[in-house]
Amino acid sequence: MTVLLYDLVAEGDRRPSPFCFRTKLALAHKRLAFETTPVAMTDIQALEGGAFKTVPILKDGAHVVGDSWSIADYLDQAYPDRPPLFHSPEERGLCRFFDAWLYASVLLPIVRFYVKDIHDLLLEKDHAYFRASREARLGCTLEEAAAGREARLDGMRAGFDPARLTLTHQGQPFLSGQNPGYADFMLAGVLLWVEAIGTVPLLVDGDPLVTYLEHVRAPLTR
Amino acid sequence: MTVLLYDLVAEGDRRPSPFCFRTKLALAHKRLAFETTPVAMTDIQALEGGAFKTVPILKDGAHVVGDSWSIADYLDQAYPDRPPLFHSPEERGLCRFFDAWLYASVLLPIVRFYVKDIHDLLLEKDHAYFRASREARLGCTLEEAAAGREARLDGMRAGFDPARLTLTHQGQPFLSGQNPGYADFMLAGVLLWVEAIGTVPLLVDGDPLVTYLEHVRAPLTR
Repeated sequence: MTVLLYDLVAEGDRRPSPFCFRTKLALAHKRLAFETTPVAMTDIQALEGGAFKTVPILKDGAHVVGDSWSIADYLDQAYPDRPPLFHSPEERGLCRFFDAWLYASVLLPIVRFYVKDIHDLLLEKDHAYFRASREARLGCTLEEAAAGREARLDGMRAGFDPARLTLTHQGQPFLSGQNPGYADFMLAGVLLWVEAIGTVPLLVDGDPLVTYLEHVRAPLTR
Repeated sequence: MTVLLYDLVAEGDRRPSPFCFRTKLALAHKRLAFETTPVAMTDIQALEGGAFKTVPILKDGAHVVGDSWSIADYLDQAYPDRPPLFHSPEERGLCRFFDAWLYASVLLPIVRFYVKDIHDLLLEKDHAYFRASREARLGCTLEEAAAGREARLDGMRAGFDPARLTLTHQGQPFLSGQNPGYADFMLAGVLLWVEAIGTVPLLVDGDPLVTYLEHVRAPLTR
């Protein structure tokens, strides 16, 4: 049976959610066939009886699960015969740390840098909600957040340095070692998201993350 | 048989090495009895036929192993019946990332902040070597590195924020989940090191890392 994933959609069928990307990579890792149902940001609350405020939402037969972490735990529990997302409780614990690092050091600067790009690419019906909610969170207008952003480009890129250092100096092609794991899906989710919505490239030629991303995303295109 | 660990020593029998602390925590985790042999920085190269430039160095019967990562791998390989340091290759991979993060975000600012304190506490015989090698690395004198350090205190403490966030918001008391693991030994190693050498406290009352450190270090005092 094919699993269904509600996936945030923007103009031109772009998919502007790092959390949906990590779940798609997780599903591919577990070799579960899935289809995505594109959904506008302001339509999420009308889905599945209004139980969820954000995507991803996974629908697997009678099971409906929201939140990327809950989905990952559900998948390992429901499909123990498939490749695990977490090989040990310790790996899951460290993935939690990784997510906290990703959020503080990478995601926040990226949101601020690209927030106006995201707004402009969202479906027209999502514009007012996105602007109001994000401006409240940022404490400034989208235009103010984007102003002078070129000066922040190097710092934003440098936020990934601990990941680069791991890939280039530790003899392992992935954060999780010799094979990609859930931490890699979280990191690649951010990179795929920016690729989908950014008007300024995040990765430049020669960045070790370019080759890395090719390998981590490969199962999505098979 | 008791394992022997060469451990860096300073005045008053202080132990000023974060890497030795992580190895001591690893040995306690594996429930291996060990004794430390204090060694001055400038005496390391005279040990064990001059094979090592840094501590920790582990001596386990005929096996002599240097470098904290090599020691960790040795311990898991030599004592598979004891609690593992790495429960899966994925955990080991993520610990490598954690070490890269720890180095860039935590260790470098801490070294700069406390380098003069460390110098002053080292044995007299180590002063000249420490000053020359660290000043070359820092690109300035020890006194210049320490100058105006109070202004850097908040930033240095904030470097630990992804770890704090993990402990306070993810329902897990340790970075590795419900039990301390090698990533916790690396982090606690830094905190124990600063406790041993700092003239300004790194942790203040109410910091969640205070209680955390008490739990991670407990096996060392049993």
